[in-house]
Formats: sequence, C-alpha cells, structure tokens
Amino acid sequence: MHPIVPDLGIGLVGYAFMGAAHSQAWRTAPHFFDLPLHPRLRALCGRDPGRVTEAARRLGWESTETDWTRLVSRSDIDLVDVCTPGDTHAEIAIAALRAGKHVLCEKPLANSVAEAQAMADAADLAAGDGVRAMVGFTYRRVPAVALARQLVEQGRIGDIRHVRAQYLQDWLTDPQSPMTWRLDKDKAGSGALGDIGAHIVDLAQHITGERIVTVNGMLETFVRERPLSDGSSATHLGGDTGRGSSLGTGQVTVDDAATFLARFTGGAVGVFEATRFATGRKNAIRLEINGSRGSLAFDFEDMNVLELYDADEPAETAGFRRILVTEPGHPYVGSWWPPGHGLGYEHGFTHQVVDLVTALGRGDQPLPSFRDGLQVQCVLAAVQRSAELGAWEPTAAPVPAA
Amino acid sequence: MHPIVPDLGIGLVGYAFMGAAHSQAWRTAPHFFDLPLHPRLRALCGRDPGRVTEAARRLGWESTETDWTRLVSRSDIDLVDVCTPGDTHAEIAIAALRAGKHVLCEKPLANSVAEAQAMADAADLAAGDGVRAMVGFTYRRVPAVALARQLVEQGRIGDIRHVRAQYLQDWLTDPQSPMTWRLDKDKAGSGALGDIGAHIVDLAQHITGERIVTVNGMLETFVRERPLSDGSSATHLGGDTGRGSSLGTGQVTVDDAATFLARFTGGAVGVFEATRFATGRKNAIRLEINGSRGSLAFDFEDMNVLELYDADEPAETAGFRRILVTEPGHPYVGSWWPPGHGLGYEHGFTHQVVDLVTALGRGDQPLPSFRDGLQVQCVLAAVQRSAELGAWEPTAAPVPAA
Amino acid sequence: MHPIVPDLGIGLVGYAFMGAAHSQAWRTAPHFFDLPLHPRLRALCGRDPGRVTEAARRLGWESTETDWTRLVSRSDIDLVDVCTPGDTHAEIAIAALRAGKHVLCEKPLANSVAEAQAMADAADLAAGDGVRAMVGFTYRRVPAVALARQLVEQGRIGDIRHVRAQYLQDWLTDPQSPMTWRLDKDKAGSGALGDIGAHIVDLAQHITGERIVTVNGMLETFVRERPLSDGSSATHLGGDTGRGSSLGTGQVTVDDAATFLARFTGGAVGVFEATRFATGRKNAIRLEINGSRGSLAFDFEDMNVLELYDADEPAETAGFRRILVTEPGHPYVGSWWPPGHGLGYEHGFTHQVVDLVTALGRGDQPLPSFRDGLQVQCVLAAVQRSAELGAWEPTAAPVPAA
Amino acid sequence: MHPIVPDLGIGLVGYAFMGAAHSQAWRTAPHFFDLPLHPRLRALCGRDPGRVTEAARRLGWESTETDWTRLVSRSDIDLVDVCTPGDTHAEIAIAALRAGKHVLCEKPLANSVAEAQAMADAADLAAGDGVRAMVGFTYRRVPAVALARQLVEQGRIGDIRHVRAQYLQDWLTDPQSPMTWRLDKDKAGSGALGDIGAHIVDLAQHITGERIVTVNGMLETFVRERPLSDGSSATHLGGDTGRGSSLGTGQVTVDDAATFLARFTGGAVGVFEATRFATGRKNAIRLEINGSRGSLAFDFEDMNVLELYDADEPAETAGFRRILVTEPGHPYVGSWWPPGHGLGYEHGFTHQVVDLVTALGRGDQPLPSFRDGLQVQCVLAAVQRSAELGAWEPTAAPVPAA
Repeated sequence: MHPIVPDLGIGLVGYAFMGAAHSQAWRTAPHFFDLPLHPRLRALCGRDPGRVTEAARRLGWESTETDWTRLVSRSDIDLVDVCTPGDTHAEIAIAALRAGKHVLCEKPLANSVAEAQAMADAADLAAGDGVRAMVGFTYRRVPAVALARQLVEQGRIGDIRHVRAQYLQDWLTDPQSPMTWRLDKDKAGSGALGDIGAHIVDLAQHITGERIVTVNGMLETFVRERPLSDGSSATHLGGDTGRGSSLGTGQVTVDDAATFLARFTGGAVGVFEATRFATGRKNAIRLEINGSRGSLAFDFEDMNVLELYDADEPAETAGFRRILVTEPGHPYVGSWWPPGHGLGYEHGFTHQVVDLVTALGRGDQPLPSFRDGLQVQCVLAAVQRSAELGAWEPTAAPVPAA
Repeated sequence: MHPIVPDLGIGLVGYAFMGAAHSQAWRTAPHFFDLPLHPRLRALCGRDPGRVTEAARRLGWESTETDWTRLVSRSDIDLVDVCTPGDTHAEIAIAALRAGKHVLCEKPLANSVAEAQAMADAADLAAGDGVRAMVGFTYRRVPAVALARQLVEQGRIGDIRHVRAQYLQDWLTDPQSPMTWRLDKDKAGSGALGDIGAHIVDLAQHITGERIVTVNGMLETFVRERPLSDGSSATHLGGDTGRGSSLGTGQVTVDDAATFLARFTGGAVGVFEATRFATGRKNAIRLEINGSRGSLAFDFEDMNVLELYDADEPAETAGFRRILVTEPGHPYVGSWWPPGHGLGYEHGFTHQVVDLVTALGRGDQPLPSFRDGLQVQCVLAAVQRSAELGAWEPTAAPVPAA
Repeated sequence: MHPIVPDLGIGLVGYAFMGAAHSQAWRTAPHFFDLPLHPRLRALCGRDPGRVTEAARRLGWESTETDWTRLVSRSDIDLVDVCTPGDTHAEIAIAALRAGKHVLCEKPLANSVAEAQAMADAADLAAGDGVRAMVGFTYRRVPAVALARQLVEQGRIGDIRHVRAQYLQDWLTDPQSPMTWRLDKDKAGSGALGDIGAHIVDLAQHITGERIVTVNGMLETFVRERPLSDGSSATHLGGDTGRGSSLGTGQVTVDDAATFLARFTGGAVGVFEATRFATGRKNAIRLEINGSRGSLAFDFEDMNVLELYDADEPAETAGFRRILVTEPGHPYVGSWWPPGHGLGYEHGFTHQVVDLVTALGRGDQPLPSFRDGLQVQCVLAAVQRSAELGAWEPTAAPVPAA
Repeated sequence: MHPIVPDLGIGLVGYAFMGAAHSQAWRTAPHFFDLPLHPRLRALCGRDPGRVTEAARRLGWESTETDWTRLVSRSDIDLVDVCTPGDTHAEIAIAALRAGKHVLCEKPLANSVAEAQAMADAADLAAGDGVRAMVGFTYRRVPAVALARQLVEQGRIGDIRHVRAQYLQDWLTDPQSPMTWRLDKDKAGSGALGDIGAHIVDLAQHITGERIVTVNGMLETFVRERPLSDGSSATHLGGDTGRGSSLGTGQVTVDDAATFLARFTGGAVGVFEATRFATGRKNAIRLEINGSRGSLAFDFEDMNVLELYDADEPAETAGFRRILVTEPGHPYVGSWWPPGHGLGYEHGFTHQVVDLVTALGRGDQPLPSFRDGLQVQCVLAAVQRSAELGAWEPTAAPVPAA
C-alpha cells in the first residue's frame, strides 16, 4: 500500500554497528508514527563493493554507492545520514549540506573543535536555504531520559545541585582484546572521552537544561599496546575499517578512561566518568541528578525505568520511585505497546528519525543542532586540555580569528 | 536489493495490538537474521474495509482482504497468521491448514479444549503434507527466558523443587475501566487465566521441561459490571471488536484473577497467579524456579536480565547473579547489538518468526506445536474445573468419546 | 547508675537461637526506649546445668535454673519468656500464668489447636488478675512492616484485593543436612508450615487487618530421611535438643514446603508459600499487597525498605517507591539512629520487649494475644486438614464440645 | 554471672550520636563474641552534670565525670573512648595516652594534619609501653565491607583499575535546616569532606590495599547562611554543643559537598564524592571497584549485601551477584544470627570493640592506627589544598620542620 505522504530519499554512509541501527530506524519509524514525509531507503554507501552490496540486501536499501561524493550528488537523495568514523564526518557532512541535502551525523560531531566549528558554520549557512543538520545524540530519545528532561523542565526537582554521570563499559578489560579504529587517535579523535563521554556530556546538559562551564579532567590509558587483528574479525563495535591482515601489536593512542569534575551554568557541580574498563558493566549509562526539591536516577542497563525522588513528599512515605516508562503519556511510548511492554536500544534511533522528519516537515531546526554538537566538542576538548595541564579549563569555544 | 532466498507469502488476520506486533516481526526478521525464506507481507485481513486499508498502509502490507475465507484461498499466501480473539482461532486455523497454508496462531490456542483438540488434530493431519502449525507463546523467545531453558537443560540448577510463577497486570484496577471483548467469556473464553495465565503455564513447562499433572485453583472476579464504551475508544488492549456506541454497563463474565497450586511430572510443586488487579504491576511476568543445585528468577519488567543462583559456589561468594542477557553467546542476541544494549518487547515476535521460518526451511515441526497449545488448554480447563469443584483436578485431556 | 523505674524480673526458658535473640532484646530495650519498668535478667532456665551456666554468663543472666517449674515459682520473677520447642509451650505457659507470671511465648503458640485453645483460655483467666500473655510474632515489629500496617490502616492502598506472601529459606536444600527437632513432628508440630508459615499468616492478617476465612493447601516433603547427628553439632537453627550421639538416619515427619490459597474476610484472595527448599533464598519473607488505590511490597532480605505504589499519582510519575524506613517519624526508628542507618534482625525483638513492657506498664493487653496466636494456629490446622483432604477448609476453630 | 576474663575499664567522652553507638557496642560485644577482656562501662564524661547523669543512666554507665582530665586520671579506667567533636580529639587523646590509657578516637582523627601528626607521634611513643591507640573508621567492620577486603586480598578481582566512591546524604538540602557545630569550621575542621569523605577515603584505601597518592578536588558550599537554633533542638546529627538560645543566622564555614579525582599507588584511578545535598540519599556509602578480573559494589543503604562480578565466568552466565553477607563464614557473622537475618548500623561498632579488645588481649596494634588516621587526614588536607589551587596535589604529609 502506498504511503500518502511525500517521500524523503535517504542515503546512508557506513553500514557497521551504527549503520544497522540507523537502517532499522528509517525502516521502522513510519510503521509506528505519523510522519510528514515517508523515508525511502534509497542508497547505502561504503567503499567495498561486495560488502556494501551484501549490507544493502541485509539492511533493506534500494541501491548502493561506493563513493560518497556520488551519493551526495544524487538527485533522489534528500538526506545524507553519516555513520562513518569521526575523521570523515566534517568532509562528508559539509559536502552534503553544500549539495543541499539535509544531514544527520553520528556523534561525536567531529574529531576536533576546528572541524566541528566548520560543520556548525556550514549548517548555519545551509539553514538559510531550509537545509537542516542534526547530530545524533540518540540517548536523548530513550523515553526515560526524555521524561527526565520533562520533569526537570517542570521544576519537579527544583534547582540542580549535583550531576553524577557515568558511562561504564568493559569491552577493553582484556589486554588481549584487539586494536580497532576506535583506539586510534587519528580515526577516532579520542577514546572513551569522545565515544561515550560525549553522550553523558550531552545527556547531562540536555536533562538539566544547563551548560558545563568549566572542567577538570583526568585521562588514563591502562593498556597501551594491543594485538592487531585482520579485518575479518571485524565486530559491531568497530571493525568496519578492516586494517588488513598484518599481525603484531598496535599502539593505543586514545584514553581508556576519562573522568572529570565540572561546574554548570546554574551552579551545580558535576562528576563525570567514561570508561571501557568497568569490568561487568556493559553499557551502563548512569545519571543521577540531585535538586533542591527532588532527584532523578537512570541506568541504561535498565533502560525502561526512571527513578524519581520527590522531596515534597512527607518523609515517612518519600522514596525513590521506580517509574516504568511505558505509559501512553510518556514520551514516544503511546505509539508502541501497552504499559509494561518495554522498548529496546534501537528504539532511540527510531525516535530520532521521528523527531528529525517531523522537524523537516515543519521546516523547524531539528535538535540537537550541529552547533549543539560543537558545544559538546568544546567540552570534550576542554577536558583534554585540562587533563594535559592538570588544571581547570573553561569550555568556551576559542574565539574565532577575526 | 532483492533477497536471494524464496519468498514466503504471509497473510495476517487481525490488526490490533497483536497484529501490529506480528507485522513488525515479519518486516524486521530478515534484516537481522539469515532466513531460508523471505517473508512477504502479502495481505492483511479485517472486517472493516476502511480500517483494514488504513492498517495495511500503516503496518506495511501489500494488499487487504475483508473476508478471511478469501485470504485463506489466495495462492500467493503460504502462511496464515491468526491474531484474532480466541473464539475465531479454530475456524480460521483449521480452514487455513486444510487449504495447505502453514499457520501461526496466537495464544491461547482456542477458547475450549474441544476446539484446541480439533485444531491439534487438523495440524497433525496437515503435517503429513508438510504443512506446519505453531502456537504463539512468544515469551519463550525472550533471550533471558531462552537462556533459562538452556541452563535447566544443562542441569545447572539440578532437580526442580519449586516453580513460582506470576503474571501481574493492573489495567482493570479501576472499576470504571470499560468493558472490552477480553472480559466477555464468549469472545475470550476466560479472563486473566487464558489471556495471561496461559503464558506462565507455557513458560513454566517450557523452562523446566516438565508438565503440570494436577492443579487446584481459585478464580475471582472483583468487578462484575463495567461501563460500555463505544468502539471509538478502542485501545491496544482490546478495542478491536468495537461493540457499537450504545452506552450502559456490561457484565464481566470472566475471571479478573486466577491462582492455582500445581504438581509437576518431576515432583516439583508450583504456585501460579495471573491477575489484572495487581496495582502498579504493568506486565510483570515473574518466574522463580528453585532446584537442588541452584535457582533462576526472571521478571519481564526487567526483561533483559536473568538471575541465577549457583548452589555449587562456596557459601561465602554465592548470590543471585544478575545476568544481563545481551551477550553475543546468548540466545538470539548475536544478531542484534553489542553487550548492554537491551532488546524490547517486540523482539520476542521477531524471534518467533525466525524460529518458525527456520523450521519451515528445514521441514521441521516448529515449536510450540498445536498439540503443545492443546496441552496448555487442558491445564487451563483443569484450573477452571478445579476452581468450580474446589478440588484437585488432573490436567490430562478428557478421553474422547469412542 | 540505677534506673528510676521499678524492676521487672524476667525468667527465660531456652537459650538457643531464640534465647539469644530475646536476651539481647531484654538487655537492650531500656537503653534506647523509655520503659515504665526496667527488665532485670533474673534467671535463665535449661536442662543441662553446665550449658545453661555457660549460656547465662554469655547472655548476661543473673542466675540459672534447670527446672522450669522452679523458675515459675520464684518470687523475683515477674515474667516468663518461653523460647523452647513448641511441644512444651502449653505446659510452661499455662503453669506460669497460673503462678501469676506474665508470659511471652515464642510462636507458633503451640503444636496443636487444642493446646493453643487451652493456652488462650488460661490467658483470658489470668487477665482477670492483670496477668498478661503475648505471643512472639516479632516480624510485626520490623519498622517497614509496622509502617505497612499504618499505611493500610490509613487507607493509602484502598480495598485489599491480593495478598502474596512467601517465606523462603534454603537450609534443607542439601539432602545431607542433618535431622533436627524442627523436622520431628512430635517436637515441632509441623515443618515449614508452623515454623515460618505461621509468620506470614500473622503478617498478612496483621498488615491487612483482615482474617483468613478459608484455605486450600498443599504440603510436600522432598527429603524424607536425613542423617542423624550427635548433639555436638547443634546449630542456631535448631540444635538445642541434642538427640544424643547415635548415628544413622532419621525420618522427617514434617513438611519441607507448604503452599496454600486463601480467602480473606474483606474479599481479598491470597497465595501463601513457606519453604526451606528455595535455593539461594536465606530468609526471604516477602509480602506484596495490592489494593484498589495502591500496593505495598516488602522483602525481609532488604528489611529496612518498604515499597509503596500510590495509584492516585498521575500515571506518568507513578511507580513503586523504595521507602528507606529509617526516618525519625517511622515506627520505632526515632529511638535509634539518623536516617539511612538501618536496623537489623534482632531489633524486632527489642521492639517486642518495648511494646510488651509498655502494655504491662499501662495495664493493657499486649498484642498479639494468645487468642491471636490461637487464631493463627487454626489457620495452620486448616491448611493441614485441607492438604490432607485436597479441598477448601474453613479456618474457624472447631466448636468446643458442650 | 561473673565473666571469667579480666575487666577492661572504659571511660567514654561524649554522649551524643557517637556516644550512644559506642555505648551499645561496649555493652553488646561480650554477649556475642569471646573477648580476652571484659569491658566495664565505668564512666561517662560530659560538661553538663544533669545531662551526663541522664545519659549515663540511659546508656548504662556506672558513673559520670564532667571534666575529661579527671576521667583520664582515674585508676579504674583502662581505655578512653573519644566521641567529641574533632577540635578536642588531639588534646584528650594525647593526654589519655600520656596517662597510660588505651585510646579509641572517633574519625576524623583531628581537624588538622598538625594535630593528627601530634596524635600519631603520641601513639607511637605510648606503644612502647604497650598502650594502644586506634581510630574509629567503623564502616570497615560492616561484614560486606570486610568481605570486599578479603576478596581483593585473595586476588578475586585482579589488578584494580577504577575506584568509584560516594558518600551521599541529604540532611542539609533544606536551606532552613539549622546551623550545627558540624557546619562550623572551628569545631568540625571541614564539612562533608572530613565528616563523611573521610570514611570513603579510608574504605577505598582499606579495601584496595592501596594508598591515594595525588588528588584534584572541588569543594562547594551551596547554602552559606543558616538559621541558628537554640540548644533544645539538638539532634542526633550534631546538636550536642548547644549553641545557646540566641536566634538569627549563622555562617556556614565548611563545604556542603566535596568531590575529587584521585590516583592510587597501584595505578588505579578514583572518583570520590561526599555530599550532604544528595536529595533522597540518606546514608548512601557507595563503593564500586573494577579490577582486571572482576568488580565489587557496595551500598550502605543495603548494607548486608556485597555485589561481586567474576570476569572468569563464561560471558553467558557472568553477572553481578548479590551476596547476602549473612553466612557463618562471612566476617563477624558467625557470632550473630542464621543466614538471611541481617545486621544493622550499630553492629559495626560492636565489631570495632571486638577487634580492638582482641588486639589489646594479644598485645597487638589495633587497626586502623593513629598513623593510618593521619594518612587519611593528609588526603583530606590535600583535597582542600587542591580545591583552593585548582590543581593536583600530592597526599604526602608535609615534611616536618627540622
């Protein structure tokens, strides 16, 4: 049956972990949500012709490209979705924007503030022509996180005093776990800091509605050398750049763990920790926010739950309540299943598509914008500078040369 | 890009809650799993032409039918998926099997043992021609549940002594919550017992590998009259039969809560409880199984977790461990996301499609079979008889008249 | 420093697990609570002179007796505390009451309804002379349980629909775990049913303020023969009757597990389970109560917490809240530590002493009375009859012969 | 009955919150543990004659003193237990040691490194005469914490990579909560840092067996002025210095929250946070330690539990296990109750008495020593310096002037 709304032609660059998640989102969103435009999975782009063809078949794309410059110039493509490693984001996204394509770009926006700055500038320029750019901080779209944002906005927890944010993984705990592009500074820009720390920076700022103004950080690389593996052992977590079959060891040039103290615009103090060495924690994005009237707590390993403490309750019946965020009135949830029937990881990507396409339909700026992505990049850069200097660093973007 | 395996033409009857879940599963399965046949969403069937057309568009079906007998006779349909209320299961499923179509039928298999018996007989007959029938006890395909089954099978918890099974919902707690077909014995067969009790009966037997031999039950209807609502307020949970707009009150003719004691083939004792009046519990399918060497515990409200207690551990370090069932080695999980990135409710349906299509490809009997569904029906009937008699009842199917 | 209130001379019979707990309570209560009488630990009574002397030294008693009939007649004893196995409760308690001593008797009140009836009658008679009797259902005095009672009384959860009560232990899981008096019907009356099932019967009735009117039960003994051990291996859990050193095996004559369905006076339905075979559960007293306006949940393995679900909350922020029952306004808590500094198992016994001595000071009947204990005994007896008959049994005490 | 071991005469200075906890410990220890010396509660010391007399009666002390110099000189006192605010620790403890009395001193050892240094020197000197000094980091004696230490020592979690330590309270969240001596730098030395931060510094070092070598901290005072209250509203949490009845507001001169990054001797990185503004957290001492072979997690709000992740387990059955630390083989537990019968806050103090008296009986140095207390003091001082300088600071004690 033909959809009754205009098509939105999508071109996706990259088909590893993120590519699979984005594909599922583009395919699924129109079946659960009313969208003003119907996403068409027009073309999947990757360098290896055989692999991209196989991926397109698997992921449901109509055609393939092996050169992203061709993808960007195709007239049936309205939106370019960038799911490649961070070192290529700026080039692809800017070219796509210049070609008049909307852009959805995976986080972190870029590997450096300079690149992110150029991307934000390109996005601002394109916006004048109604061309939109958005950065993919997907976890904002987990219903429990969106609910947390609503509750803070409504003043339910009062003035924010503490932000406690952790992103804990353990996939590098084993020193024999092989090199991947994610451990190579040239490709990934940074390690835990940019890959997962970026998420908790965005989430903390998004939920509180405040910005981090100054940071004091510490970076650590526990295992500095790792075995090289041939490309065939590529995994979801980062094998999509196939480093060839030469064996031996490779230098880890990024941080395994990043921790930092922070101060927020509204006076709150924050403690952040991102690590791939938290043995037993698989994808524990943990946020706890303490305000003058209440508190919120979230852990992605129990992603359908938000905990709320309401300090206005009498002490005798106050307690952290475990809100199962599966009610029809909860963000995004009404389009899915009845109460108690939880959502999974990939639903955040579907919600991202919904928010993006809805904004496009309305001619609005989808959020978070490239400028928001730049601001996160500035926080990450400040953490890195701070860790090198052993001192507090402001997060403000360096003033651009006149 | 065209799939490289033969098509499997699907016809789906019903497009409410279950219809949406099954549609998502048929659409999604081939994108994450290698299937021997490629499901094609050929036709969606429902009585109201306008609504079925709208549903087909939304859910992604190629065409519609308003008469299931036509659907069953279409040559491009290889499998009929039955998602209607229980009173129509037998008629549709048997007709489909006779027409040489594979059948996937939602649970409970039927509203009576007699109907279920007829269905199981029809399925056995069809099997001679390679036509397969399966009943949709989806929760078996939650990875944590599938892992529980594996661990019991491996002997990890030894001989089973206790089964503690609860299915707790609360959507009827409010006496003003309106009538639906699910509260009408003619449509639904029974209340909590058949709707959700069926699931925990199947899960308990599936995980333990044992059968319930005798039961002693109690049924209760707390609210016996409820307001009628017009069809427009139809909800996911049961509005698909639109009872017209006449107002007033309707008689609740099914149980709100069903509890029963049970004995298993292997000597274990069981306690079962299914209710829609457990205020605050939304979809709490809870299973705890105690064996001579360990225990397992599961709660669907935290569906990506299985708890395991290993009694072979030294007492000093023994404890229920919270296994995050998101590792590549866990059932079904390897085809999805990295560790810690949980799945949601609908993934069980996708796994059901995977198991069904895989069995069809191999020419195997998919499980659970209609005969398995009949056995569950016999347990439910025994609970009902037992509740009426106030005595223990065997679950064995009554001997058919000669 | 001398206390400024009159003394209350205590005589304790039994010095095993319960004796130790009661001793700690008698010693500790006056240091944290304002009592109208000052408990003096006058005499500890046990059959073995050497062991009772050693126990008295350890537990802080001023003197010893080896014959309880002497204890009961001592003029410096005002209250006899009975901590022996159940088969001796009636004789000792009745004699003490007749001698004008107040009595605190461990649960279950007796091993049979007849004995319990005689005890309740003796207590009623003694009450005419201001002599008081109380049965020791200590768990009522866990602050979280007392808070649950308050909340139900205040109507916070509305009309009760469901009671879900479990008492799960695992100390018999190992078939080589030796015989103890607790597995001998002559000494203990019953197994899990009377020992731990009695507690959840009392708790369920106490918290709901309702009585169980009819039951349908199932008893099971998984391991019917166990090795005998000599008395030297006496443990906290029941070694205080030292069965001599003859080895071999002994017959387990009580239930390992007891489960039953129940109906309450107010229309609620209940499911009860008491077992010593729940591998991995050490002392899991779990109660969940669902009402029309909310729910409560408790687990003794996390004893300082009560969970409350308030259905009057908007669905978007409703959730089971984890009340840390350590606030000054919580029952008993104000006399202890600041918020968040939890109490332990033995504090329930101290609170029992407080409530008992306070009632004695006021000339009130302490609760639960022997008549309350008799009523629990009648429920247990009904479960046992019901399990034998395979049918529902009323809990009402048999009408005494005219 | 007379104890069969020699007496140990105790004199306690201070009778507020800590005084009550210590009194209960001195009274209780000999009833559950075999001690080489029998503690006698000889004298309680406080400035106000009426209040100390009342406290002595309540807490069970034989006599009172209103001048600690007299207490220290009494020949029937063998050990002085110092439970006063931090500004008096040094003077009392040093005088007691010089008078040949053993000393147990509450934490933090002193309000400054200089005082702590003097105390440690005095303790070393006294040790030559067999006089012993110990600082009261009680939480080491929570069984779950002691078990954590054992497991790290046994190598169960391998090399430590991450320490995540939080001490979260919320009793200052309300800006109208009154001034107390704990908010006065002159009395308390520091705020959250010294009061509760000291505990997590000690616990983190104790459990890991490593020392913090360098820190980078941030202190924050959210509410800088608070209402004065008269002494009558004295509470457990700090009213024992009765500031007179003059009303108005007082200056908060200490930190409300202290956070810091840390590096350990063995290469681990740490994140510490101590706050009295974590709304809804009452006494949440949380520790998570990630090692190369496993992880440990503890939260005092569920104090009878230790979580252990064993990375040697196959991924399919690995998970954080919830060890209920109530088994006879667990530290301290064998002297208390059967499995599953948890302990409370005050038991840590009883265990402290046990360890102290056991060491005295053996002529051993009880741990933690004053020198250990000094080392913690140096960490706290380094945090304070670091927060002032905005830079990393070494924790090493400043070299004493020649």
